[in-house]
Amino acid sequence: MTVTKAKLTIDEYVTGLKRGDRAVLARAITLVESNRPSHRDEAQDLLQAILPETGRAHRIGLTGVPGVGKSTTIDQFGMNLVAQGHKVAVLAVDPSSSRTGGSILGDKTRMNRLSQSPQAFIRPSPSSGTLGGVARKTRETMALVEAAGFDVVIVETVGVGQSETTVADMVDIFVVLLLAGGGDDLQGIKKGIIELADVIAINKADGDNVARATQAAAEYQGALNILTPHDALWAPPVLTMSGRDNSGLDRLWSVISEHRAKMTAAGAFEERRRMQAVGWMRAMLSERLMALADRTPEISARRKELEARVREGTITAPMAVEAMLQVMGLHGAALRHH
Amino acid sequence: MTVTKAKLTIDEYVTGLKRGDRAVLARAITLVESNRPSHRDEAQDLLQAILPETGRAHRIGLTGVPGVGKSTTIDQFGMNLVAQGHKVAVLAVDPSSSRTGGSILGDKTRMNRLSQSPQAFIRPSPSSGTLGGVARKTRETMALVEAAGFDVVIVETVGVGQSETTVADMVDIFVVLLLAGGGDDLQGIKKGIIELADVIAINKADGDNVARATQAAAEYQGALNILTPHDALWAPPVLTMSGRDNSGLDRLWSVISEHRAKMTAAGAFEERRRMQAVGWMRAMLSERLMALADRTPEISARRKELEARVREGTITAPMAVEAMLQVMGLHGAALRHH
Repeated sequence: MTVTKAKLTIDEYVTGLKRGDRAVLARAITLVESNRPSHRDEAQDLLQAILPETGRAHRIGLTGVPGVGKSTTIDQFGMNLVAQGHKVAVLAVDPSSSRTGGSILGDKTRMNRLSQSPQAFIRPSPSSGTLGGVARKTRETMALVEAAGFDVVIVETVGVGQSETTVADMVDIFVVLLLAGGGDDLQGIKKGIIELADVIAINKADGDNVARATQAAAEYQGALNILTPHDALWAPPVLTMSGRDNSGLDRLWSVISEHRAKMTAAGAFEERRRMQAVGWMRAMLSERLMALADRTPEISARRKELEARVREGTITAPMAVEAMLQVMGLHGAALRHH
Repeated sequence: MTVTKAKLTIDEYVTGLKRGDRAVLARAITLVESNRPSHRDEAQDLLQAILPETGRAHRIGLTGVPGVGKSTTIDQFGMNLVAQGHKVAVLAVDPSSSRTGGSILGDKTRMNRLSQSPQAFIRPSPSSGTLGGVARKTRETMALVEAAGFDVVIVETVGVGQSETTVADMVDIFVVLLLAGGGDDLQGIKKGIIELADVIAINKADGDNVARATQAAAEYQGALNILTPHDALWAPPVLTMSGRDNSGLDRLWSVISEHRAKMTAAGAFEERRRMQAVGWMRAMLSERLMALADRTPEISARRKELEARVREGTITAPMAVEAMLQVMGLHGAALRHH
């Protein structure tokens, strides 16, 4: 027997979210994750309606290659925060999740304690195709959990495509988890990610590994001091910690709080959010416009053919762009770019 | 008395370029730098016609903050290459040059010997507004000098906006010039630039400064080994040199040649160029489409107003994007992005 739930009005969603109703929150997330056009319109109305309730959480991005201990660390870190009275939401950005089968079961298993806490909310990655789509849904889900009273949002990602950059662009502070091992454990880290980090944490500093982790942290800190342009406001610290043994996580939280205090005092905290909002608008507009190049099977086929010709060097890129604008019916409209 | 030059046909441009006629080259560059629509069409026909003659040069990108000695170094490095029988073209990418008054005179003064060599060709930055526009003209000029027989093209840039990334995306190898001074001389270097480098060169390793430069190179190399993800194909070396004293420039050239040989053997040299060509096509298409958001004063005003509202947090970014697509008349056309 199927139970049909009554459709909620925007008002019902808003009041439900504001009282922290988890069932309403789950339904609201399902709504923003839906690809149905009518759902999209409804979701946008809902997001506009809750806008005054959003922006209150501390948004923490966390990345690290598989095996670095993200799940164990988030589970313990989240439980620590819950014990301090925080409400913690964990969202994931993994554009490959539709392929690798990311699931609620998987997230519940890997964050065993946090997933059972009434003060925590764990949501796996939206499992739709593009990074842009996944990012949009994650940003919108972040707004929903903020409206529902969660005051710490952890957005985690594995290094797929440009997912780290995307996550760094939606959070207040970006933490990169590494393991001891000199440059060797950077194998899975993409170029440029270290420079995105506001905090670097050497994880698994436990048991026999403490000395190596401490040594690695000193090396990373020294290398950062040499290679990274100085920022008067914030020099990314390198910490050691163990998610498994719950050591160093209090220090991580105090560093995160210190970062917030310093950035806020300098006006950089709110400015980063404002820049992120405008940057997101521009990126989304660009994506929607670029989607015109795949609007019909014919246009899409032409795009692929032109890209192949540019790739093999039989047509110049500007010539291919003119041809694309023609086939998209925008040649007269699209201004030449000088 | 004004001398009116006869308009050249595409065939005349092509044959002139192929025989290395500098007057024809200069006129062809003027053509690709022109913003007049009829010139743009003619330039595109010319570029398509010379396509088989292009791609033969070794394309070297060079960046460094003002004061690092770029001009002195390029002047000497270029003269060395000319002495070895190379034909060297130097192009500049400086989106601010229309403001700061970059000029041929300036380039001739700052590269005194190279500018007088018949085997060299120096062209200042196109002085039009956006980085995209400057980059397009530089790429097209690169094709022209290649067709005219220049086998080494040096594209230099100062750190303005995203100009380093743009230059790295149009060359075969990207060289970052630094000065000794630990992390201090990275003040002017933007985040992420070090990670773009294929070669780092500590300049001004001369006189009393040799020991400091050697020490700095060792520190940078150590830091790179720790912080940069390993690339099986190429680990960026840190060199010391002096453009002023012409020391270390032979080593720079041998490293550049070694890089080319290794990349070519692995198939990565041509692949980088193919990826650059397709990447350029996509970036240019995106720019042209985004220019639709400023197509008329009304649309542009609406864009600014919506961006301001997103910035201040009174409208969601997705809502602003929908509004923009409406005002651009593309709401029905632009597919939702999932």
